[in-house]
Amino acid sequence: MNVGIIGAGQLGRMLALAGYPIGIRCLFLDRDAASPGGQVGEIIVAELDDVEQLNRLAAAVEVITFDIENVAVGALAQIRPDVAIYPSAEALAVAQDRLEEKRLFESLSIPTAPYVPIACEADLTLASRTLGRPLVLKARRMGYDGRGQRIVESEEGLKAAWRDLGNVPALAEGWIDFERELSLLAVKGAEGEQAFYPLVENVHGDGILISSSAPYEDGALQSEAEGWLSALLDRFDYRGVLTAEFFHTGSGLIANEIAPRVHNSGHWTIEGAETSQFENHLRAVVGLPLGDTSPRGYAAMVNLIGSMPQARELLRIPGVHLHDYGKEPRANRKLGHCTVVQADRQRLSERLQALRSAVGLA
Amino acid sequence: MNVGIIGAGQLGRMLALAGYPIGIRCLFLDRDAASPGGQVGEIIVAELDDVEQLNRLAAAVEVITFDIENVAVGALAQIRPDVAIYPSAEALAVAQDRLEEKRLFESLSIPTAPYVPIACEADLTLASRTLGRPLVLKARRMGYDGRGQRIVESEEGLKAAWRDLGNVPALAEGWIDFERELSLLAVKGAEGEQAFYPLVENVHGDGILISSSAPYEDGALQSEAEGWLSALLDRFDYRGVLTAEFFHTGSGLIANEIAPRVHNSGHWTIEGAETSQFENHLRAVVGLPLGDTSPRGYAAMVNLIGSMPQARELLRIPGVHLHDYGKEPRANRKLGHCTVVQADRQRLSERLQALRSAVGLA
Repeated sequence: MNVGIIGAGQLGRMLALAGYPIGIRCLFLDRDAASPGGQVGEIIVAELDDVEQLNRLAAAVEVITFDIENVAVGALAQIRPDVAIYPSAEALAVAQDRLEEKRLFESLSIPTAPYVPIACEADLTLASRTLGRPLVLKARRMGYDGRGQRIVESEEGLKAAWRDLGNVPALAEGWIDFERELSLLAVKGAEGEQAFYPLVENVHGDGILISSSAPYEDGALQSEAEGWLSALLDRFDYRGVLTAEFFHTGSGLIANEIAPRVHNSGHWTIEGAETSQFENHLRAVVGLPLGDTSPRGYAAMVNLIGSMPQARELLRIPGVHLHDYGKEPRANRKLGHCTVVQADRQRLSERLQALRSAVGLA
Repeated sequence: MNVGIIGAGQLGRMLALAGYPIGIRCLFLDRDAASPGGQVGEIIVAELDDVEQLNRLAAAVEVITFDIENVAVGALAQIRPDVAIYPSAEALAVAQDRLEEKRLFESLSIPTAPYVPIACEADLTLASRTLGRPLVLKARRMGYDGRGQRIVESEEGLKAAWRDLGNVPALAEGWIDFERELSLLAVKGAEGEQAFYPLVENVHGDGILISSSAPYEDGALQSEAEGWLSALLDRFDYRGVLTAEFFHTGSGLIANEIAPRVHNSGHWTIEGAETSQFENHLRAVVGLPLGDTSPRGYAAMVNLIGSMPQARELLRIPGVHLHDYGKEPRANRKLGHCTVVQADRQRLSERLQALRSAVGLA
């Protein structure tokens, strides 16, 4: 079975590596032959919206999926109709647009931050008067890893930030005072079956995920979040992994955003869950039964960002699993991650401390 | 870091897949571009003893290893000396020759079956008179998965069996009445550090491994076997994984054979141990610290031999991990394996029963 992946970043790479053992071969389409995915599988080198090359990919596979959100939905619509695309272009389109995402949350009664759509200067004034302080300005499209976002403290700041974003269509959001950030990964299979990983606690720095740990054990929150994800999966007649990020506040969970794909906050599942998010995404899109999403003990994942520590220094720590994405170092670039899994929290904490120290986080 | 692998079978394939995450890229040399390894990494298509092509491989890598035992030691000797070969050609040469292997066991006081070397007809008579019944005739070289072996009940049978093997240099062994077959995998790193996986219980059929389960918990046997493996590792100034197969008899362990490589009876370590045999072999040969060999619960592995069950039928069983080697089906051919891991033996036994049934073993 062949699966085409649009985008050949680290997510595509880990999908391909999860595919080989279960008889699934992934083929990539991306701009750079030396991309993380292109190092572990065949790649068609092309722009992500090159319809002719997308159809070359489609001719070689049974199913197409993607490893990034910023895929042109218009180009997907021109792919030969006999090749299925999962998750659907509809889900992708909503996830690409923060305003559509907000409306989706509202339509399903999923709590989310108060917001004002920004299309003109007058909207900035309205936002400033109704949303309190501080405000978060977010471009509607093309945001990831904190890009296209500004935190501001005044109407003047809001105006400057919007100019800074190029006066593009945006959202102003009220500030959410959260205790922690959580995410939930769900997967839906070909026969409508759904499965959920346990809640993950995430720590960000400058908008980039630094570390995740799972399971975050809170039965009530888990049920509530699963209910929302289930509604989202059903809303789109979804196939594959869907991730939702939440703020955990004194009054419960507030949905921040969704990603219609495998997610950095699910990397711990490679070693920490019975079936990884990558294998389950592939199983779902090709129509195989979903795998068990149960955790195997307590896991923590730490991203390797900007520069790569020596593999020797990481692997000398007992129980550390390294995932090197094969990328050139660059500021704020995710180059790899490490995971530790232990049967009890105390030992996890000890090993995590050693790992954080080796990565320069301690 | 680039590692050259001579032979691109399923062992090479699983080495390559274990290498990518830790920043190790494997390049293969084998006869068939479509071999299991060639499907997941670059391959030089050549005969295994083609010195020119072996040196092409050597020019592209820092270290060479192998995934099969029947590599021509003479060809290895002609590889450019600046590229290290691990495990050493000396260890390989001994493992290729059952008589040398026997002498090695004797030199280290490792119990082994009584035997008579067979070089002429008179040796057959001697063997028949001194070793009892039944006898096992084994070609000295090129045996694996039960090939080149015959069990016989008489001197006439022994003579016929030797003719059948082509009168090649052979060994006659006395029969060992064993309760079970066990194996031990050891690994030695660049700084001389050694690590041992727990004993594995193996079930063979027609000389081919059918299934393995681990850990086989017997502290005294584990210590004894570790002591022998340690002596073997030191004997060769070894680097990498070394496997020894034992008969477990009423009077203890009897060494059967060694393999200077990762081994089918260690496949369970991918999911069932903290670090897989494949990752640890690569860590050892490139000089990275060894990973934790502790088991994660109880694991069982079942080989998929001759024909491939539908992936759907295997993956619908909770907790089953599939490893499809990408080979064409053929009688007695190992096409893949499945592993189940559970925290307790009872649940393992239930899942294993479902798996055995899906594979047609129940």
